[in-house]
Amino acid sequence: MEQMEMICFNLISSVGMAKSSYVEAMREAAKGAFDEAAAKMKEGDAFYAKGHDSHSDLIAQEANGEAVAFSLLLMHAEDQMMSTETIRLMAEENIKLYQRLTEMEGK
Amino acid sequence: MEQMEMICFNLISSVGMAKSSYVEAMREAAKGAFDEAAAKMKEGDAFYAKGHDSHSDLIAQEANGEAVAFSLLLMHAEDQMMSTETIRLMAEENIKLYQRLTEMEGK
Amino acid sequence: MEQMEMICFNLISSVGMAKSSYVEAMREAAKGAFDEAAAKMKEGDAFYAKGHDSHSDLIAQEANGEAVAFSLLLMHAEDQMMSTETIRLMAEENIKLYQRLTEMEGK
Repeated sequence: MEQMEMICFNLISSVGMAKSSYVEAMREAAKGAFDEAAAKMKEGDAFYAKGHDSHSDLIAQEANGEAVAFSLLLMHAEDQMMSTETIRLMAEENIKLYQRLTEMEGK
Repeated sequence: MEQMEMICFNLISSVGMAKSSYVEAMREAAKGAFDEAAAKMKEGDAFYAKGHDSHSDLIAQEANGEAVAFSLLLMHAEDQMMSTETIRLMAEENIKLYQRLTEMEGK
Repeated sequence: MEQMEMICFNLISSVGMAKSSYVEAMREAAKGAFDEAAAKMKEGDAFYAKGHDSHSDLIAQEANGEAVAFSLLLMHAEDQMMSTETIRLMAEENIKLYQRLTEMEGK
């Protein structure tokens, strides 16, 4: 496997794991398990950071004047990264909504 | 129109319809119409599956060593697919929140 | 800096500002400040429109038969635009949920 493919697969795998963690965080929050939700968000961030390193390597390569060749795989990897970032942001908001709901249900 | 453009337009149209269905599903849930919301999610999934087929054809082409040429149109098509996937995921969570809210309002 | 890079940076900066406004809109709604939330959504739309103009220029260029060269920067710019669109959509739904919650809390 070429180095570029390797980077893309690493990126896809890391941000995919991060995405799963963020989704699980929302599911924990739905159960009222807010500590578990916070732990899942943190777990997701650790996976995401790994993926983001691969992405940064590519950005640095291009910035150094070494063109990064296009491939569908690369596009897919970058798309996965961005969608994971969006899901992280929305998961955070979701958890807050569950906190409010849970507080209200307690009253 | 070239075959590649055709694939992209099919992809954009299918996932665009799917996205609309998912958004409508949330709006149904907001009205407390949870059966309609579920039906809209299912409708969206059928549209999405069609779009995903076009995407899989391209992935297969590239995996077979036949490079897929870059175009903005292709990038846009792939972006639309990914964002629809994200909206599907968040719509599901949204509907659950509306279910909780509706239960509470009933008490 | 080349013209293409300029367009990408404009796009990234405009949609980035729009994204921040949409996130702030959700935070205002969480505080029950719905007028402020609506103002932030409007502010975001103004930023977004600027970014979208850059994007439309590129689309027009390609549609006129002048190929748009691939770069990671361009891919990143387009991804940012799409994710901002997704966040806008979900922010709108989020604000509605906060409105319902706030109404219920008042009862």
